[in-house]
Amino acid sequence: MTTVPAQQQDREERLTELVVRSFDACANPRLQRLMVGLVRHLHAYIREVRLTEAEWAEAIDFLTRCGHITTDKRQEFILLSDTLGASMQTIAVNNEAYGEATEASVVGPFFVEGSPEVPLGGDISNGAAGEACWVEGSVRDTEGRPLPGVLIEVWEADEDGRYDVQYDDDRTAARAHLYTDDDGNYRFWGITPTPYPIPHDGPVGTMLETVGRSPLRASHLHFMVVHEGYRTLVTHIFVQGDPLLDSDAVFGVKESLVQHFQQQPDGTPTPDGRKVDGTWSAVRFDIVLAPART
Amino acid sequence: MTTVPAQQQDREERLTELVVRSFDACANPRLQRLMVGLVRHLHAYIREVRLTEAEWAEAIDFLTRCGHITTDKRQEFILLSDTLGASMQTIAVNNEAYGEATEASVVGPFFVEGSPEVPLGGDISNGAAGEACWVEGSVRDTEGRPLPGVLIEVWEADEDGRYDVQYDDDRTAARAHLYTDDDGNYRFWGITPTPYPIPHDGPVGTMLETVGRSPLRASHLHFMVVHEGYRTLVTHIFVQGDPLLDSDAVFGVKESLVQHFQQQPDGTPTPDGRKVDGTWSAVRFDIVLAPART
Ligand SMILES: [Fe+2]
Ligand SMILES: [Fe+2]
Repeated sequence: MTTVPAQQQDREERLTELVVRSFDACANPRLQRLMVGLVRHLHAYIREVRLTEAEWAEAIDFLTRCGHITTDKRQEFILLSDTLGASMQTIAVNNEAYGEATEASVVGPFFVEGSPEVPLGGDISNGAAGEACWVEGSVRDTEGRPLPGVLIEVWEADEDGRYDVQYDDDRTAARAHLYTDDDGNYRFWGITPTPYPIPHDGPVGTMLETVGRSPLRASHLHFMVVHEGYRTLVTHIFVQGDPLLDSDAVFGVKESLVQHFQQQPDGTPTPDGRKVDGTWSAVRFDIVLAPART
Repeated sequence: MTTVPAQQQDREERLTELVVRSFDACANPRLQRLMVGLVRHLHAYIREVRLTEAEWAEAIDFLTRCGHITTDKRQEFILLSDTLGASMQTIAVNNEAYGEATEASVVGPFFVEGSPEVPLGGDISNGAAGEACWVEGSVRDTEGRPLPGVLIEVWEADEDGRYDVQYDDDRTAARAHLYTDDDGNYRFWGITPTPYPIPHDGPVGTMLETVGRSPLRASHLHFMVVHEGYRTLVTHIFVQGDPLLDSDAVFGVKESLVQHFQQQPDGTPTPDGRKVDGTWSAVRFDIVLAPART
């Protein structure tokens, strides 16, 4: 640890205070708090690590590269936030435990507005490669009352580890929304989740490699559950037994979200009588929604 | 201030520790320290301000817009760092006071490699609009010994507040380099600095406006002074009496860098006998270089 002379410390502190005061005229107190907090932490970081000018320049260049690779379909800043755990920390702060309410996880960069609707029991895969997977469950409030008409968005990668938006064509696949029935239940066909790397051909991938981290995510299926009067739930389910559960690249795993995907041998009859070629799997995910924040 | 229940605090702290441990395998101890410090401060910030998911999304969008406006000639991330005082704090950390060595200031986004060379007494303006300004001074070490052959890069905005690279053509103007003579002295013609706004048609400009800050910089002339065996000095000189000295958008002003630009009435003879139309100004800036860091 470098010792910083008192006079130098004083100079550095005065600079921080000068910057903090520049936000004195901000008419929005919340924004002022956000900016002042940002300045204090950013300056404290620079002072603590004694950031060199070369490191600063490298950081500017890193952000620039993140910006230039980011498009409508590739969001490097979300990947950065995810891999630094900033996304999960934001989710933690905003989803304080409420009774038995289902825990949240990262939204990730692959949610797309305007997914197709499928009927209950429908197939979301739309040709995406992968083993068929029957997903069913209920949506209830924290008192155990079933919630009918709840919007459920689901999306997942195919067995090659890619979301539809990562292909060059304009396909929509392994992505849909549906609504719970009158008893608050839902069911659909998807594909059994498999592990995939987060997009790692950009600056965030380089960062992970440089620090000795893997870009792989534990296998998962994304859910977003929306209902008026309830806290919107963005979460995943993970696959019990997946060796990646302890090293998820974006820190998204929570024990309560790990589910048993039951493997079904070739020829096992399906719940809805659908004919499936080869093996399939089945999982149950019962969802509990917290009331909306007031 | 929101009170956060102990169980929730514990959950948030555990998440930070999980992310910190993900850098355990980093082979480069300096990089590990930088990443761990970044994670700790970033998480502390999110927890302290209780960042909402909407605010997080706004931050992602802000960074995306910064990335998309950034080109070879427009560097929004440097503007962001500058306006948050992060650039000046980095400079403070890396340029601890050393005897009478000249203080440093921000490099800013307008330095360009490969400036033209001018002879001693030459004119750097190359057609840039503005009042002529005679700049002279010496470069010495902290023992007072003159330093010959020192590289001095200078660059400045024209009287319309724009650097050459901000024009659509490929002009090079008000930008050059020269070398000190055998006695460690230098002299050149430039233009009298005038205030200008940092580029504020992008996300950083919107941020400044939203928080009630001005994009204006105090009038200045940029210097970069490079000599083997000495700490490279990146600095400005500012104009005594400029009303913007106390509210510089990037916190670059230091009292020791404020110089007297002496106004010369129309017709006053120039130091080198050059004929100047109208008024001109003259300033002296004596530079002291600290030894290179060891
Ligand atoms: Fe995913
Ligand atoms: Fe400037």
